[in-house]
Parts: sequence; structure tokens; C-alpha cells
Amino acid sequence: MSEAGRIGVWIVGARGSVALCTLAGAAALRAGLIEPTGMVSELEAFRPLRLADPGRFVFGGHEIRPGDLVTAAARFHRRTGVLHPDILRRVRAALRRADARIRPGFTLDRAAGAPKVAAGVHVGRGVSPRALVDRVRRDLRAFQGAERLERVIVVHLATTEGVASERVSRLDWRGFERRLAGRTAAGFTASLLYGWAALSERMPFINFTPSPGAEHPALAELAAAQGVPVAGNDGKTGETLVKTVLAPMFLCRNLKLRTWFGYNLLGNDDGAALADPRRCASKLKTKDAALTRMVQDPELRSKVTIDFAPSLDDWKTAWDFIHFEGFLGTRMSLQFCWQASDSALAAPLVLDLVRFTERSARLGESGPLTHLGSFFKAPLGVSEPDFHRQFARLLAYAGAGGA
Amino acid sequence: MSEAGRIGVWIVGARGSVALCTLAGAAALRAGLIEPTGMVSELEAFRPLRLADPGRFVFGGHEIRPGDLVTAAARFHRRTGVLHPDILRRVRAALRRADARIRPGFTLDRAAGAPKVAAGVHVGRGVSPRALVDRVRRDLRAFQGAERLERVIVVHLATTEGVASERVSRLDWRGFERRLAGRTAAGFTASLLYGWAALSERMPFINFTPSPGAEHPALAELAAAQGVPVAGNDGKTGETLVKTVLAPMFLCRNLKLRTWFGYNLLGNDDGAALADPRRCASKLKTKDAALTRMVQDPELRSKVTIDFAPSLDDWKTAWDFIHFEGFLGTRMSLQFCWQASDSALAAPLVLDLVRFTERSARLGESGPLTHLGSFFKAPLGVSEPDFHRQFARLLAYAGAGGA
Amino acid sequence: MSEAGRIGVWIVGARGSVALCTLAGAAALRAGLIEPTGMVSELEAFRPLRLADPGRFVFGGHEIRPGDLVTAAARFHRRTGVLHPDILRRVRAALRRADARIRPGFTLDRAAGAPKVAAGVHVGRGVSPRALVDRVRRDLRAFQGAERLERVIVVHLATTEGVASERVSRLDWRGFERRLAGRTAAGFTASLLYGWAALSERMPFINFTPSPGAEHPALAELAAAQGVPVAGNDGKTGETLVKTVLAPMFLCRNLKLRTWFGYNLLGNDDGAALADPRRCASKLKTKDAALTRMVQDPELRSKVTIDFAPSLDDWKTAWDFIHFEGFLGTRMSLQFCWQASDSALAAPLVLDLVRFTERSARLGESGPLTHLGSFFKAPLGVSEPDFHRQFARLLAYAGAGGA
Amino acid sequence: MSEAGRIGVWIVGARGSVALCTLAGAAALRAGLIEPTGMVSELEAFRPLRLADPGRFVFGGHEIRPGDLVTAAARFHRRTGVLHPDILRRVRAALRRADARIRPGFTLDRAAGAPKVAAGVHVGRGVSPRALVDRVRRDLRAFQGAERLERVIVVHLATTEGVASERVSRLDWRGFERRLAGRTAAGFTASLLYGWAALSERMPFINFTPSPGAEHPALAELAAAQGVPVAGNDGKTGETLVKTVLAPMFLCRNLKLRTWFGYNLLGNDDGAALADPRRCASKLKTKDAALTRMVQDPELRSKVTIDFAPSLDDWKTAWDFIHFEGFLGTRMSLQFCWQASDSALAAPLVLDLVRFTERSARLGESGPLTHLGSFFKAPLGVSEPDFHRQFARLLAYAGAGGA
Repeated sequence: MSEAGRIGVWIVGARGSVALCTLAGAAALRAGLIEPTGMVSELEAFRPLRLADPGRFVFGGHEIRPGDLVTAAARFHRRTGVLHPDILRRVRAALRRADARIRPGFTLDRAAGAPKVAAGVHVGRGVSPRALVDRVRRDLRAFQGAERLERVIVVHLATTEGVASERVSRLDWRGFERRLAGRTAAGFTASLLYGWAALSERMPFINFTPSPGAEHPALAELAAAQGVPVAGNDGKTGETLVKTVLAPMFLCRNLKLRTWFGYNLLGNDDGAALADPRRCASKLKTKDAALTRMVQDPELRSKVTIDFAPSLDDWKTAWDFIHFEGFLGTRMSLQFCWQASDSALAAPLVLDLVRFTERSARLGESGPLTHLGSFFKAPLGVSEPDFHRQFARLLAYAGAGGA
Repeated sequence: MSEAGRIGVWIVGARGSVALCTLAGAAALRAGLIEPTGMVSELEAFRPLRLADPGRFVFGGHEIRPGDLVTAAARFHRRTGVLHPDILRRVRAALRRADARIRPGFTLDRAAGAPKVAAGVHVGRGVSPRALVDRVRRDLRAFQGAERLERVIVVHLATTEGVASERVSRLDWRGFERRLAGRTAAGFTASLLYGWAALSERMPFINFTPSPGAEHPALAELAAAQGVPVAGNDGKTGETLVKTVLAPMFLCRNLKLRTWFGYNLLGNDDGAALADPRRCASKLKTKDAALTRMVQDPELRSKVTIDFAPSLDDWKTAWDFIHFEGFLGTRMSLQFCWQASDSALAAPLVLDLVRFTERSARLGESGPLTHLGSFFKAPLGVSEPDFHRQFARLLAYAGAGGA
Repeated sequence: MSEAGRIGVWIVGARGSVALCTLAGAAALRAGLIEPTGMVSELEAFRPLRLADPGRFVFGGHEIRPGDLVTAAARFHRRTGVLHPDILRRVRAALRRADARIRPGFTLDRAAGAPKVAAGVHVGRGVSPRALVDRVRRDLRAFQGAERLERVIVVHLATTEGVASERVSRLDWRGFERRLAGRTAAGFTASLLYGWAALSERMPFINFTPSPGAEHPALAELAAAQGVPVAGNDGKTGETLVKTVLAPMFLCRNLKLRTWFGYNLLGNDDGAALADPRRCASKLKTKDAALTRMVQDPELRSKVTIDFAPSLDDWKTAWDFIHFEGFLGTRMSLQFCWQASDSALAAPLVLDLVRFTERSARLGESGPLTHLGSFFKAPLGVSEPDFHRQFARLLAYAGAGGA
Repeated sequence: MSEAGRIGVWIVGARGSVALCTLAGAAALRAGLIEPTGMVSELEAFRPLRLADPGRFVFGGHEIRPGDLVTAAARFHRRTGVLHPDILRRVRAALRRADARIRPGFTLDRAAGAPKVAAGVHVGRGVSPRALVDRVRRDLRAFQGAERLERVIVVHLATTEGVASERVSRLDWRGFERRLAGRTAAGFTASLLYGWAALSERMPFINFTPSPGAEHPALAELAAAQGVPVAGNDGKTGETLVKTVLAPMFLCRNLKLRTWFGYNLLGNDDGAALADPRRCASKLKTKDAALTRMVQDPELRSKVTIDFAPSLDDWKTAWDFIHFEGFLGTRMSLQFCWQASDSALAAPLVLDLVRFTERSARLGESGPLTHLGSFFKAPLGVSEPDFHRQFARLLAYAGAGGA
């Protein structure tokens, strides 16, 4: 029996640093240790939506890494300064409870740079994808049952994967199901199977990573058929956020963008994974696309470069150089440098997305949640790349959906 | 007899570098030498407004400095690289014609750092302000008559003044008139008298500087009574533009701004004038106000500093450091560096403002043109400080006013 | 009875953040918790000097603030992330022992922005400077006696003071003594009296701040007469260090420096103190002097600005803009941004200075230690401003003094 | 018959932008239009060396591009703002004279990104390298004869090549000669053949590029045998210069460098060439080596990235991010941004190198000129990477060689 208003949040990648900040943050909010700074859903404008209280979320998830959340959190603080011991001390019990709900996950990635995987969960070629999906579904149902949850939202936070094979990328629902029944998972990526499992269980699926997860046509068909909301892709936390705010400024002033080069340094597991060119391709696609979709000028030369700098750990440091032409052919420049903890930026957005998505599920909204475009680098079902317009869409939703 | 569609642009500060770029740019546009890059009014969205062709504007103005436009333009290029000789060669005749229409101006500023003033035009304490206003009005009427202009727009581009005396700042129309008749101009600033003269002649007045010009209550009354449009204050060309685009981003993400310090280096006459603390006060007021009006958080510590760096000349270089707090109390930062020719940014906006204002005058709109808020640091009659919302207002105006 | 090799370090400003990092760092070194990163004296080149082991220093000092070192250290970590709890836990006992040796200090500064002072230690006009000096001397002797120290080095780390009065600044030894006997301390600054007390006790005096401390002519006479070494002024930790490395590069390349503007943001007590223009003057003098002494070009426009940004706390953030002219009159630029914990940079240099100075005292060197020039912004007795040459001088000293 | 003191400078890549600035600059110096800003050899310290007057150099060279110097110079100014028309007007005659002495060069590079090559000078596989060398030698002798030059210095300024084949790279003199006689130039690079030709004519050879030119063991043998000075490689004009000044600062302070990533944007032909990964490899080698040779810490992660940004043209823009660890494990950072015209920086150094090398040749110094190490990224025969020490070596040379 589920309990009314009891919301489960199932995180794929449950011991990664974004998950750590999300879980510890939710517990700290509940305990009144922190303010909801960085949570969009706490803005005055969204009060009428009566979103679920993040302090009451019940967390579980899949993880391929060994270890436990408390140790990981202490280590995260030592390396980054984020998640202060004063807070950690008081959310330790909550982390332990969540830890007990984490199940072994799987990955299909063997790439160099992949995080070290606990024995047994790495999946070889001889395993049926259907079996993987079924295992995930069992875990999800068990979570919901054991915790008496009215509703479970699945959030994909696992390290960026490579792209799926071309053949798999083009499958429709029927083809996808047929291939699931095959004898090998080759061509699939884990996020596709996690997403398929969630939607099959009528659980909303949020893809916060650039992995192919939520945008596959077969998953879209499934979400529609099941009447379940989906949202993604790739949380817009930092440099890309600034880009989608600055680029419209140049366009409004009829200034011609000539060069926009972004140089990103990353030191966390995500950075390590992106040292693998195949995975990096996924990421660069969503990062640069935001810009080129906005500007659409063949004379703009744009590029995003990502380098792995372990000493920075979670502190993403990005330098963007913007060269533009104004009146009388004058060339001028703007450069910016963004220095921020990627996980501390992402975690509150994860809580926001769960809250908005939970409401949609509750009200029966399904398919891509296009009012959530401002949260993503490559928002599902949204062609508008301008942040302020994406955000105006969310405000309009809140106005329409309030009371 | 005026000629239909013949538009005059009267510039106070007609040999300054913004004026140079405006005049040379308009002539270069007419000759097809440059594209209208940097002109907002050339965006597709404003085509339905059928704005006047800037290539056909007839320029004149007041100036306190000696010299001529062609020499000033050559000097400007040598010092800044802007206004290439290839262009200058082909607009020389146009500059000479405009030069012939420039009349001696006046200033009431004796501050250190004021640009050197031609003998005779600096106005001492014994001169009646009414006489100054009357001389300006005669010059404006003579310009309109001699050039057979259907309409004249007056644009204030002269170097930033100090603030008017408190007593003068509070005068209403009646009081202003009475004081005009007095024996001394003390307490007034030149921009107030230029503005009064323009409005008295029913000529729209645009104040592109932080000088008190357009915002005085008596001028507002006069504009309303005369049915003439006014616009101002202080063109939003660079650092402040970026601020009014970035600050809303932080607000939309519920991130707490803690420190926002802007450090501006300027090397042109404007920079020299701002080395005078009294004038600088005018400027800093409009620059910082844009931010504090947006953020309204007592915990934000913000400040704008301006230093004079002659070697930069017109190439304003501004560094902004933004320190903000996110989830879990994490402190993060964004810094940006803006390097741009102030005059090359300002000139197309001056042409834009003249075009929009001319249309308003033609259609009988009067008083503060609130749809032009996105052009100014401290827009007259506009409380919205967010650039993208100010711009949406302009788009709405174009939608409403089109066809 | 003193114990051979037992070295005391007496810190004026003993609970400030530099002192905290110095004391905790020395204890952590002793416990093997950290490496001596940032300590110049640990470079291979200085091994032959057989400098004293900083892990064995005995610390005491004067402080005007209430509180205790352990609480201050915990608070420092919460605000800055420096001095991790894992370290703090294991040096707590050492901090407590040092705390017990701290005596109430005094200040002569009433300026706004001065740190809050414990009741009773702020010194009014009616107090005789001689009495203050005597009290300090008693404290120093008591420290040496109680701890059986072979030698005590006094280090001035207290918050930047204003400058001394002109009259006091020019006093010679005799005049200084006479004025000490007067009925008021007005005109003196605390650092002068601390320095006088230390030298009178034949204890070496190191002034790590821009306060007038060590450079007063009367103190120089006293140091010479007593045969005691002195060193100062103002530790070269960050932005100025970079300056004294970069400026020679431009000179070696015969590039003409035109503009060098440094904009410093500081959020710690030092920053708060510098919000007081009188104190700031002391600081700016040493910071800008380093540059102008190197460059000596009337066409260089240089300036240092310091602003108080509490959210940064100890994390000094400095942006320098350097505009230079090269071949064919081409103007080019270099900008740099320094982001560092001032105290974490200063603390190892304090340990270095104590070690080098202790050796000098042991070997009978006296007067200004000119081989320590590379440690200071305004090195006593050193006219060479180029960091690499100053450092070569230290290497030469080590070569000469080794074995 | 040669004329005493008449010095020829033969430039390989004679119409490139560095050559343009060198030739125009030398003529402008002669005409007294500019000061020798940026010329190291004009520093007071080098006056005793009585270096040759650069205003009297006679220029010639090889070039593979069509066109003429005057047109190229005008185009260069339009694109970069460097080489002002006021100067160009007065050096036009000198450029025309030099143009008349430029002979068709050759390239062995077919890479994408190579500058467009005039028909006939691109060399296919069927051409004997000996024939190429002989042609160059004939051109050099003709230049010397026609202009009655006492001495000719050959400077390699042509666009960065790919590396030579491994087999060619390892040849000794004998092997080199044997392979020259072969039927194909494959495996060689043009700079090797130009260098061989120069040295065979006993003309000093300066390689200002990262091309393999001067460092080949066979060329070193030849230079020694002929008694001719050589110098190279890769002029240290900008970002690397700053690196070799800043890295020693960190070392002197015992701060641990953890990450040093340099991101370079270039828009000139050099940038275009470096878009070809093979050529880029040559460049990155010399750029990163300077750092790793200095630091030699396995924990330092360093990298240099170069991207092609055509809108910048000659205005190299480089951002370096330096992450370092200090006391108590504190991680701090320095970032710098260098914005400079590569050619305006390089040209005076080319004149310097010619002057110093000419003196060496005159005095009979031969082999690698190790006192010129401060001019190069990867100085021939010099292992010291610290700029200030390299420069001290040059000062010492001047002290020794003066009078």
C-alpha cells in the first residue's frame, strides 16, 4: 500500500557527486540547516504550484561503484570544500538510510576513462538487454513497494556515455522491443535501458546528462503511450547557461558574433569520462548546439573544448572568448570565466526537476515537459534556445497551472 | 519651407567621438560602404515600423571644442584603429558639410578634467540662463529653416556634467522659468538648458549621457505640454548592458549575489571628465543603480569604480567580479572582461534612437518613450531593469505599431 | 635557564588568520600531517644553512581581540575552506598551549573599520608610550623565561595601521626616547612601540605588514646599536609578487608599459581595515611603489585600488590590467587574475623569515637583513625591486653562508 | 666587391606578416618615424656591443606566395590595425625595393591548411633535394653579389612545417648529403634544405619558427665545420615568454604547480597552418616543453591547445589557467590573458637576432649562439628554461664582449 504524497526519487548514479549533493541537500533542507538557495522551484512565482516538499523525498538508486554515501561525502568535502562537515554530521543518518536502498547498477561502456566498476556489474556482450531492463524494473517496483511510495521519479545522473550505435538510434518502439529480446546489448547504452525500464513502469524519467537516454524516438513513443512525462537532456548548470543568456544580448543589439570559443576544465569523474573522445562527443554536441541554434550565422566560428584537470575536481572552470563585430566593422570582445562547483549547481536543479515532474505526473501531463526547457542544454521538444524565453515559458506554465 | 521626410539631427557635442562615429557611419551607410551592424532598428522585427533612412539624416550641432570633423576623425583613427581611412576618405565631403552646420556651444562646467574649451564659449556666472536658451533656440530654428527640415531631433552627447544644484533639481516648470530669467546660470547644467531649448521648439530631446538633461521634472512637464517625445538617460552600451543581462540569470536560478564589483578603465574625454569626482558621481549613479534595482538584496555588496587610463583611449575595458552563493552555501564566481570601443557601440544606438523617436514624433506620441528602455542605463519612465524584458517591450511596440 | 636550540616566536596579532595558519601549520608539520609546500626555506638550495626546525618553535604573542585559537581556526575554516578539520583536530592541543601564552595587546588606532577591540586594551590619549613599551618588554621577558627559550623572534602580523604622525616619523633615537617619556602616545603607532620593545630586549623584529614598524630611523639606530637583525616590510604574498616578476619581463623586452592598474578585492579583517582610507594609504604605498621603482617611466600610469568584499573573506582576488606598447607603436595587453588565500600564502613565509632571521641572530648578523628582500613588498635596505634578482641575492647568501 | 658594413638579411617567408613588420619597421626606424620599442638590442646594456644599424640592413628573401609587399602591408593593416597608413606611406619605396629582391621559394608541405602556393613552386616527389638546395644557394650568392654585401644573415620565418620523417631526423652529415643526392625530397622539410643551403654558403642561419630547421644534427655538424653561427628555435614572443617568467616564481616560492593549461587562439596564416594536426605537433612540442623542462614534477598536468580563430587574425589571444597548491594543501589559482599582435612582437626580435648574430659572425663565433636563449621557446644548445636566467646570460655576454 502506498502512502498519499510519499514520493520516491530513484537516481541512476546514486553515489556520484551530484547525487551526493542532492541527497545531502534534501536532508539538510529538511533539518533546516540550509536555505533553498539555487532551487528555482522555491522562487515566489512557483508557490501557486504547490510542489512537493523535497525534504520528504525518499531516495534510492542504482550505482556501479562500490563504497557508501557517507564516506563518499566526506571525501567529496576534502577534495572540494563543498558539503561542510557541520552539515554532513547532521545528515549522516539520512545518507545511511538512502545507502541501504541503493542497488547494483550496470554499464555498457568499456571506454578508457570510465569510472572503475565493481566486479559483476559490468555487462559483457553475451547478456540480453531484456534481462537488464527486467532487473531494473524489479528494483524499481521493489523500491516503490517497500517504501509505500505513491509515485517514483527516475533521474539519470550517471557519467556521460558514448552515443548509441546508429542502428539502435533509429529504432522505433517495435524495433526497439525486438532488439531488446536479442542476445546482446551491443549498440545500446545503459541510459536507454534505464529509461525504457522506468517508462515501462509508468515512472517519469528525467535525463540530466548528455547521454542518449530520453531523446530516443522509441522512448518518446513509449512515454506517450504510457502517459508518462519525460524531461531532458543535460542539465544547463554553468557555462552553457551563461551562453544562452549572453548570445541573445548580441543578437538583440545586431552585433555580429565572429568567434565564440569555450574552453572547459573539469576534474571530476565526469571530466575523466570526457577524456574519452567517444563520450566527449555526446557532451560537445549539446554544449555547442545551444549556441549555434541561437546564432545561425555561417560566419560564426564556435567550438567547445573540454580538458581534464584533476586538481580542480568538481570545480569546473570555463573560459569563453567572444569576438564580435560592431558598427564600422569594429571588432570587440567579451571574455568570461566561470568557476563553480558543478555538483552544487546541479543538485538543486535535480530537486526542482523532480518537483515539477512529480506535479506533472500527478496532474496527468505526459510526454516531453516543454516548460522545463530552461533547465537543459538540449531540451526535449523545445527549439527555443534563449534562456530568458525558456524561463518565460516556465513562468507562463506556473501562471496557467496555479490555484 | 520644409521638405517632406527631411530629418535633421542636432547633436550637442558634435565633434566628440560618438558624434564622429555617428556622422561618419551614417554617411558610410548611405554610400554602401558598411553594413548596419550594431543597429538595433535594422533587425527584421522592426521593418514594419518603416523607420526613416539614417543615410538621409541631415546633421548639425553645438560644440565647445575648436577643430573640424575631418581632422578629428583622422586623429580618432590614429588613436583607436576605428573609422578606417578607406571609409574616412569617402565620407570626408559629408563630414565637411556637417561641420559647416556646427555652432559654438557652451558649458557651465569648470571642473578639472573638463575638455579644453574654445575661448568665449565658457560661460561665467554673470550670464543669464535665458539668454543661453534663446541662443540655442535661434540656432535650432536656423538649422531647420536653412535645411528645410520637416523635423529636428536633438541628441545630447556632450561630456558628462556634474549634477545640478539641489535647488535647481527640484524646480517645477514655473520655478524653472522664473530661475531662467535670473542673472546667473549657477546651479543649472548645460544639458538642462539644451533640453529646455529643444522642447521649447517642440523638438524631441534624447539624452544619451548621464547628465541630468531629460529627467528633470520641469522638462518632463514641458515635454508633456508641448506634446513632444523625450528619451534618456545614459546609453547602455557595454558593461551595464552585460550586467542587465546576467543579473536576471542569477535571479532566475535563485542564486544569491553576494559581491558584484565592476572596475572600468576608460581613456577618452569621457574618462578624463570622470576623473573629476563630481562628474563621476552622475555616472556611477546610473551604472550601479541598474544592478541594485534588479537585485534588491541587502546582502549584495556592489560597487562601480571608474579609472582614467589614457592609453586605452576609446577602448573601454571593464572587469566585473561576481561572487554568488548556491546550494549548500557554496560560493562560486563569474568574472567577465569587456573590451570595446565605446563610440563604435554608441553610434549605431544613437541612429536607432533618432529613428524610433522620429517615428514617435511623426505619429504624435509624446512624453517619455518607455519602449526605448533597453537603450538606456537609467531609462526615463521605466522601472524594469532587466534587459530582455525591456527589449520584449520594444518588440511589443513594434508588433502593436506596425503596418 | 634557557635550553639550547629552543626558539620562541612572539606574534603581534596572534589570533589573526595569518597567525592561525602559521601556528596550525607549524604543528601540522611537526605531526607530519602536511608537507612544507609554500616554504621557501625548505628548497634544496637552503639545506646547507641548517635552519631551525619550525616544528619545534614555541609560539606566544599579543592580541587585542578576545576569543581563542581553536574557535578562531574552526571559524576560519567554515568561512574559507582553509585549515581542514582533519588537520585542526590533530593540532588542537598545540593551539591551546599557544593560546595560554597570548597576552593582551594594545592598539592606538580608533579608525572606523578597526577590528573590535577587547575592553581595556584600547589605549587613549592619556597613556604614556613608555608604559606601553615597558609592558610589552615584561611580556617578552616572561615568555622567554617561562619557556626557557634560547632566543625569541618577534613578528608583527597585526592589522595594517595608519601612518605615524610626520613629527614622530622623523625622530632620531634620542628624540624617539624623549617622546616615549611624554604623557601621550598620540603620533605613535602600535607597531613602532612593539618594535622598540623587541629591539630593546635584543630580540629580532620582523614586520610582515605595511605598518611603519621596522623602517623608522630610530628603530634602525637601535637595531644597529643592539646588534639585532630586523626585517620588513609587508610580506610579498600575491599580486605584488606577480608584478615584480612580470614588470622586469617587459623591461627586458624593451616594451613600454603605459597602464598598469591593479584592482584588489579583499574580505578579511585586513580588507575591513583597508576600507579606512588612512590605513589604506600605508598599504597602497608599498604596493604601488614596487612597480614604479622598477619601471621609472613618466608615461606609465599605474594605480592600485583595494575594495572590501566580505564574501571573499581571506580569498584575495586581484585583477591587473597591463597595457603596453611595442614595435610600430602597437598597443597590446596582458591581464591576470590572482585568486588565493592570503593567509595560506603568508604563513609559510612567516616561518621562513623566522628561520632565516633566527640564523642571522645566532651568527651575529645585525641590522636590516637585505638578503630577505624577496619576501617583502618594500624590503628594508634593499633598492632592487626585481623579484628574481632579490631571490638571486638570497641564493648567494646561502652559497656564502653554507657549510 | 662587397662594401664594408653592408649587411644583407635574407628572409625565408618574405611576405608573411612577421617579415612585413620587420621590413617596414626597419625602414621606419631609418626614417625616424618610430622608436625602437620592443627591440632588446637597443637596451642600454647592449650599447657596448656596437651592433649593426638595422636601418641599414638590405632585405631580400624567398616566398612561395604571389603578391607584393605594399599590397600585403595595406591588407595587413586593414585586418589588424597594425602598420598604420601614415607609416606605410613613407616606407612604400623601401618595400618596393625589397620586393624586387624576393625570389620564388618552395615548400614540401601539401597539408590541408597550407597557404596557397603559386603555381610551379610547390615541389612534387620527383624533385631532387640537391637541386633545391643548389637553387637556394644560387639565389643567396646572387643577392650578396648584386648588393655588394659584406655579410648575409638568413632568417627562417616561413609558416610552421610538419616534422621531418624519423629517418631524415636522425641522419648525420654524411647521411644527410647522401640523401640529398637522392631522387626525392620526401622525408625532408623545406626548412632543413634552406638551412643547409645557408650554412653551405657560410651564412649564419636563424630559425625563428618551430620547424625542424636549425636543430638537425647534420646542420649542427655543418655549422661547426663551416665556423658559422646558428640560432633557434621558435621565437618566444608571447604566452611562452610569460610562462618562462611565471613558472620560476612558483618554484622559488616552493608552491606546487598542479595544472597549467594554455589555450591559444590564433587567426593568421600561422593559425591556419596549425589547424593541420601534423604542423601543430611541431608547435605544441616547443610550447609545452618550456614549461615541463622547468617544472619537472610528475604531478603537474600541463597542456597547450591551439585553435584557429580567423577573426583575430594576427592578434593572438591566449588564456592560461594555473592551479597550484600551497601551505596546508590550499589550492589557489592564477590566470592570465595575453592579447597581442604576434607579428608586432616578433619583428623587433628578428632585428635583434640579426644584429646579435651578425656581430657573432663578424667576431668569428660559431655554432649555436647560446647567449640568445632568451629569444627562443626551444633554444639551441641551452637547457636553462628560466627567462630571467637566460637573459642574465645575454647580459653577461654583453659585459664580456663589450669595449
